Amino acid sequence: MSTTPLLEQLIEALRCLPGVGQKSAQRMAYQLLERNRDAAVRLSKTLAEAAEKIGHCEQCRDFSETPVCQICMSPSRDKHLLCVVETPADRLVIEQATGFRGFYFILQGRLSPLDGLGPKELGLDKLATRMAHGEIKELIIATNPTVEGEATSHYLAQLARQFDVHPSRLAHGVPLGGELEYVDRGTLAHAFGSRLEMLE
Amino acid sequence: MSTTPLLEQLIEALRCLPGVGQKSAQRMAYQLLERNRDAAVRLSKTLAEAAEKIGHCEQCRDFSETPVCQICMSPSRDKHLLCVVETPADRLVIEQATGFRGFYFILQGRLSPLDGLGPKELGLDKLATRMAHGEIKELIIATNPTVEGEATSHYLAQLARQFDVHPSRLAHGVPLGGELEYVDRGTLAHAFGSRLEMLE
Repeated sequence: MSTTPLLEQLIEALRCLPGVGQKSAQRMAYQLLERNRDAAVRLSKTLAEAAEKIGHCEQCRDFSETPVCQICMSPSRDKHLLCVVETPADRLVIEQATGFRGFYFILQGRLSPLDGLGPKELGLDKLATRMAHGEIKELIIATNPTVEGEATSHYLAQLARQFDVHPSRLAHGVPLGGELEYVDRGTLAHAFGSRLEMLE
Repeated sequence: MSTTPLLEQLIEALRCLPGVGQKSAQRMAYQLLERNRDAAVRLSKTLAEAAEKIGHCEQCRDFSETPVCQICMSPSRDKHLLCVVETPADRLVIEQATGFRGFYFILQGRLSPLDGLGPKELGLDKLATRMAHGEIKELIIATNPTVEGEATSHYLAQLARQFDVHPSRLAHGVPLGGELEYVDRGTLAHAFGSRLEMLE
């Protein structure tokens, strides 16, 4: 007997959080019960409410409490640009880091037939309908530079061309502030192959 | 507008967990909503139940769903030994790592007048009553080797002597498997000063 049954359950339940193993879950449970029961109750309520009320935007598939999200409803954004990302987190970093003011489409995954993720699961029919409308001029593909992300990116580029939309993708290369010595071989080979002429 | 208001609330609520900052909270929220709503609901329920039902054992002050915890109720443990620890987590590691089969007393903190933690807050009156009973022969003091933990340990030792109980404390020194080169100076000086004669 190490802990009470309910405490065991709590530790087990906390392990559903990403990056939380047995030790961290235990520390979290102890800390919440020892010092922070109000926060635990608040977290419990917010979790239940979020799990129930947060759905997906009909247009971009991002998380939203309303049928269409704030970004998709914005009248000041550029209708000619659509940026495709894998996850809501990716959209958030792009929004925070760049000056991009077009619209987004969130795949909520990447093409991965082994996991049962095909074009339908990623909502590509919805994306095709949007491109068929004719307003979109450029499809900026910002999937992750992984094998599956690249496959998805090629599929999306082909799809875009069918609707006369120009596909583009993020530049890959040596990260700013990185040291060549520590950059992995694949990235370095890519950066070398894609070198740009320096103009005066 | 980066996320929905409810999502912001969830991220904020998740930050009450120890070791979870803005980035991790965001990743947790996204992962729960994207892939694991059932787990989120389960976590929410368990949290609420735990915050409501888990109290403290009347005897040892450990977490317990019953007035007296399982360990304190155990008839097979040695009534002459009482081990004092700072937190329930400390009790758990001692229980898991050692063959100790006496009883425990959990301070739920350490003497720290600046934080308003005095003998009363640590339940030392309760501890004194237990020692006055006369059954306890040895008080094993397992507070942390910090300044406050050491102060607490000295206070406890004095208290024990008042009731003719022998106080003892955990040995400090070089950790097993550690390399001398990486052991901090204080520990090394202590280990050196407390060196033991090697017997044949």
